[in-house]
This record gives sequence, C-alpha cells and structure tokens, in this order.
Amino acid sequence: MGGKEFFTTLSVSEALAGFQPSRRTGAETVLREDALGRAPASPVLSGAELPGFARSTVDGYAVRAADTYGAGDGLPAYLDVIGQVRMGSAPDTTLRPGAAVQIPTGAAIPGGADAVVMVEHTQATMPGAVEVTRPVAVGDGIVRADEDVAHGAVIAPAGRPLRAQDLGLLAAAGVTRLEVRARPRVAIVSTGDEVVPPETRNLAAGQVRDATASALAALVTRAGGEPSYHGIVPDDLEQLTKTLAAAATAADIVLVSAGSSVGARDETTAAVEALGEPGVFCHGLAIKPGKPTVLAEAAGVAVIGLPGNPLSALVVFRMVGLPVLRLVGGIEVAPPEPTVPATLSRSLASAAGRLDVVQVKVRDGVATPLFGHSALLSLLTSADGYVVVPEPATGLDAGTAVTVVLYS
Amino acid sequence: MGGKEFFTTLSVSEALAGFQPSRRTGAETVLREDALGRAPASPVLSGAELPGFARSTVDGYAVRAADTYGAGDGLPAYLDVIGQVRMGSAPDTTLRPGAAVQIPTGAAIPGGADAVVMVEHTQATMPGAVEVTRPVAVGDGIVRADEDVAHGAVIAPAGRPLRAQDLGLLAAAGVTRLEVRARPRVAIVSTGDEVVPPETRNLAAGQVRDATASALAALVTRAGGEPSYHGIVPDDLEQLTKTLAAAATAADIVLVSAGSSVGARDETTAAVEALGEPGVFCHGLAIKPGKPTVLAEAAGVAVIGLPGNPLSALVVFRMVGLPVLRLVGGIEVAPPEPTVPATLSRSLASAAGRLDVVQVKVRDGVATPLFGHSALLSLLTSADGYVVVPEPATGLDAGTAVTVVLYS
Repeated sequence: MGGKEFFTTLSVSEALAGFQPSRRTGAETVLREDALGRAPASPVLSGAELPGFARSTVDGYAVRAADTYGAGDGLPAYLDVIGQVRMGSAPDTTLRPGAAVQIPTGAAIPGGADAVVMVEHTQATMPGAVEVTRPVAVGDGIVRADEDVAHGAVIAPAGRPLRAQDLGLLAAAGVTRLEVRARPRVAIVSTGDEVVPPETRNLAAGQVRDATASALAALVTRAGGEPSYHGIVPDDLEQLTKTLAAAATAADIVLVSAGSSVGARDETTAAVEALGEPGVFCHGLAIKPGKPTVLAEAAGVAVIGLPGNPLSALVVFRMVGLPVLRLVGGIEVAPPEPTVPATLSRSLASAAGRLDVVQVKVRDGVATPLFGHSALLSLLTSADGYVVVPEPATGLDAGTAVTVVLYS
Repeated sequence: MGGKEFFTTLSVSEALAGFQPSRRTGAETVLREDALGRAPASPVLSGAELPGFARSTVDGYAVRAADTYGAGDGLPAYLDVIGQVRMGSAPDTTLRPGAAVQIPTGAAIPGGADAVVMVEHTQATMPGAVEVTRPVAVGDGIVRADEDVAHGAVIAPAGRPLRAQDLGLLAAAGVTRLEVRARPRVAIVSTGDEVVPPETRNLAAGQVRDATASALAALVTRAGGEPSYHGIVPDDLEQLTKTLAAAATAADIVLVSAGSSVGARDETTAAVEALGEPGVFCHGLAIKPGKPTVLAEAAGVAVIGLPGNPLSALVVFRMVGLPVLRLVGGIEVAPPEPTVPATLSRSLASAAGRLDVVQVKVRDGVATPLFGHSALLSLLTSADGYVVVPEPATGLDAGTAVTVVLYS
C-alpha cells in the first residue's frame, strides 16, 4: 500500500463504518467512588436480592390482609397489637390471626403478615388494640424482598458509563470495587514551524501558540480518555516520524494536528504512512471543515491526522475521533449529548455526500450560523453549538427545523 | 421562628426563587489544564490581539490587490516574485507595486501586501515571476491581526464553565493560570437506624446499605462541587444535631437524607431547626416524589433535608439542590442538559401546583413511564431519563409531546 494512487477521500459515514482499529483497552479494578463515568468491563451482577427483606412502605400496622376484609369507618376490624418492629432490626414477633404489629416505613415485615395498614386508616382507641377502618389487600404497603433487584440480576451493564444512580445501586448491593475498561491513552502531537508552546510569553512575528492540543486534551478527558502531550514537532519528516513512532508505542490512539500549509500536510501524511501496517485507511474526508484528515492504523493503534486549523481539528475529532475513542475504550453506549431544537435563520449551502458542521448561536429557538475562517478559534468559543448538514443534503433552507448539538 | 404553625409547603418554583442562601465560594488560581468545567471568577481578557499578525489563509502569493485588477486567464497580471515568507518567521521583504511574495497558509503577510492570491489561480511560467489569472480584492486570503480576538476582549466570561474550545483560546492567548470560583464543599449526612455503610458485607435483617450518599456524591462531583461524607447518624436528635453542626462548619452546603419514617423525619427537621439563623425556609415541597423536603439556611450555609427514599432524594437534589450548588459556586450559566423529544405512551396524573418528576424509558421516540415505589433504586437505573409534569398542569395526556431529560 501507499503511493498517491491509493489516496482516497471517504465520506464520514464510510469512515465511521470502516475505520475500526483493533486496539482495545484492558480491564482494571477501581473503587466504586472512582467509577463515575467508567464503563464496566462486564455486567455487574447482584450477589443477593435487594432490599433483601420485605419492607414496609408506610408507617402503620403489619397485618394479615384477611383480617381487614370488610373493615370500614362504621365497622372497624379490631386487632390485638402484639408488638412493634424497630428500624434496622429483625422482627421478633410472628403474627397470628387477629393480631397486628406496629411498624415504621422501611422496617422489616414480621412473619405471618402479608400487608401493612397505613396509620391514617387506623385508630388506637384502647391500649394493646387497634381499629382498622379500611381493608387492605395482600401486598399492600410492602416492597418485596427482591422487588428492587433479583439475586443474580444485572445492576450495571457492560459498556455503559456509570451514572450517579448506578453508583447508588452498586452501593446498595455492597459493591465496593469493580472491573472497568481502562481509559484509552491518547497521545497528542502538534506540528508546525509556526507553533510554539502556550506558555510562550512573547511571540515573535509569525508565531502562534498551540491552541489545538489543550482543547483536544479537554475533549479526550471528557470522553473518558487519558491525554498526554507529545510536544510540538517542526515541519521535518524525520523528527515527525520519530515522534509519531514513540507516541504510537506509548498510546492507544495518536492524534497529530498537521501543519496548515500544503507542504506540512504532505509531511504529516508521509510520517503517518511510515508508521506501519495496515497503514493509511483514508486521505481526506468529505467533511467541512476538516477535509485534510488522515486516518491510519499502525499495529492496532489508531492514528488520526487532524487538519492544521484548530476549528477544523476540533470538529473532526468530535465527529470521527470520539467514536474511535469509545470503540477502543469499550464504551458501547455513547453518552447522550445536550441538544436543542431550533430553526435556521438563513440558508446553508452544502454538497451532496459531504457532512457540513456549522457553528451556531441559538437565541429564542433560532439558530444563527457563525461564519468566518476556520483559523479563528473565536468562532468556536462564541458558538453555543453546531448544526450538521447531513451527507445526502445539498443544503438547508432558512427556516428549516434543525437540532443544535450544544457545547458543554 | 419554629413551631408547627410556621410549617409551610412551597411549590418548587417558589422555593427556587426564594431560597437563596448567602454563602458564596471564593476565588482560587488553577492551571489552565485543570480548568475544564471551572467557572472563571471574573472575565478573562486577552492581553494582546490574536493571531497578533495578519496571516495568510491559503498557499499562494502575497500581492497588492490593485496589481491584479482585471486579471484573467486570457490576460494574466505579471508580477515579480521578490521573495518568500517562511512559516513562523517574520517576513523580510516589503512589497512594492508589481511585486509578489510566495507565502504558505498561516504565514505572516509581508509589509505592503493587502491580499493573497491562491496558488491555484497563478502560473509560474518563468523563474522570478508569476502570472495571476484571477483578480483579488483587498483582504482576500488574509486573516487580520485582530480578527480572532481584539486586544482587551473577553476570551472567557465569568461564571460560564470552561469548555474544551475555551481552553484552546486561553492557550492561544498565553493564559497559563487563571482565577476560578472554588468548588462548593458539599457535606453529605445520612441518617437512619436501618442504614449501614455500603462496604457492609453481610446485612442483618432490616438493614440496608447507604445508596443515597454515593449517588449524591456523584451528582455533586458532576455539577462541580466537592462532596465529603459525614457518616451515617442513627435516629437520635442529639447525635444528628451535633453532626449537622459540624458539617455546616466544614462545608458550604449540607445535604442530609432523612430517615424514611415519620419519626425520623421529625427528628431531622428538629435538628435542622436547631442549626441557627435564619433557619428553616420551608418544610415540604410540592414535588412528587420528594414532598418531605426541608430547606434551611444557617449562617449562610444551605441545609437541604432530603427525603429518606433514594429515588426521592436524588430527584429533589437534581431539581432544587443543583441550582443552589451553582448559585453558591458562581456558575451563572447552567450547562445544557441532554434531552430528547418524545411522545408519552400513557397519561400521567398530577395535581395543579405540584411538580411531578416521572422516570421514563425512551424507545423510538416514545417515552414510557416507569412506575413503582420510590424506595426502588432500580426505577432510576433502568430509566433513560425523566419527564417533568409542569406545576400548572393537572396531568399530561397519552400522546403528548414531551421533552425527556436524559441521564448521563
């Protein structure tokens, strides 16, 4: 493989379907309190039923439902109160017919009882007895021992990032540590003779600070990856090849933001091609902005050559890089994205087969596209989100109902 | 204040409007790479214009636009190529009329030039000269020195959590550290004789592991707060009062999940009332689930008495606790939530003035409500999100178009 004759531009959907680098992260054990957002490596099963004992859902009296049949205000059922259940303790009484046991919300149902009468439907007129003024059916006022979770049931599926309530259920089940998929290690390489580190205080004419690496690292972190910076490489094929090879050894995914000039882009492509088998998957994506994207795989490691302009690089990473990151890291369920419906303030032109990603501001349900050169980061920082013009469309008319993906 | 005659149930909107504890977190300095999701304490201004020099947006030739007027394929403009600009370097030539300078994308525009002709619109037929076959206007192919950011412009507003692209722009502007609002410290107190720590291996009959604290901590972390566990307090007024007082000293917000029985709830209320001035703001919220909620303020610290059932506690914390956390922590712009439009599979009953929060599954645009007792955590873990029945509504009919807030 290799050589200009194999250079191919793919659509984004073709790239997403076909670019499946083989690297997968392993499993690691983490404490439950560190597991927010992590993807379980296998389904977590409950070792017992939950809550584990039949519980009262009300404050009242545990009874045999049959003893209350026909009870009403005019003809209450009279039951002997033979004890009470304390919160957190095992009941020490068993109901015989005609008896009742006082019970608070959440306490364990005593043996022999099959329902709980709310205190509001009783009257305690004499010591040691209670009048029940409403009948109850079997199961009323009770949560069964396995009603929350059955023994052996899945309490957290594999591959879905754990949410707050999942951690709650894991805690309820006594899970203190669990196996999750390791975070994909993502190496970030910047290139370009003009690019200097962000901590550079004074810029010489023609220099720009590296903005892309910081923004990419933030997106990687948010998506559950572990970013690492591999420096800024000048437009020099040998240095770039060496840096990329080292990055591919140390990481599961390599992101390289190409220089923005044609020469720099060619150099990045050549360096990516030199990395190894199976090599370059595509040169060029039918996406705007972001056409000069290179996707490659070397020894299982995904190598994504991003365009030189920060805006383009971030758009491509969102659309193509994040799915790859999830694939490698075992995140089978993509977390839902914030969106808002809106109508377009003006028409957007596109080309059939090309995915256009348009930055927009949203006010009062109207999405206003922001235009400007993709070298401008302020387009992204002033945008509330973006609208996608789908591949088959040749554009969207003003007034079209669109879904804006919101930045957060 | 105090005493049953002052007990008040408020609507959620009344509570949100009126419950404004005075505590605010201070500012702290963090490194830019640690600032994702943090809220700047004041607007971050750019100390210089960006990119800081006029840049070419294409590979081509820097020219005087006037020299290309009338140029075409039949009658090209002939210009003398008097040099080239290298990436990352200051241009060392100044254009005179009739001259051109070769320039790559992103390089600095030389003095005297006011446009760049794309290389695609030129022909280099003779050494030292170039034919321009398309006219350019002043400014074509150029990003101005202040086009991304003007000197002194806001590059990150106060109070809006920093997003990936904001970190990019901060890097471009050379900001290596910045002042952000400190994370609100949120103390989490669990109560109940039946509640035992999640690490408890074997439960005695009647005991349940503390699920609420773990889930609350995760929600607090996600929202930018710093959770701390203050243990599980038995249903004992003196111990609870002591624990709450200590928590209120160490934190900006105190969350206490009440016991679920009426007696335990009364105890929590009494302990909250004992904390100090201005004291209890409301007893009871018109929300389902979650009615037995207590909101109070003691010496500026928000104290939120959450219902004993985990599901209710988490619902109330989302609806009422998160806005308070953002207020205290200086987050003026709530991050957008993932939502999806759906139609209701069945009717939901509610009461006018009450906010109902209904857990739902969403499949193919249909939201199916999940019903069950609010003691069941599995309702929350099997839900994709929730639907809110607004306060004025007495219910929602089957088929109603609703917005589902998705869990992530």
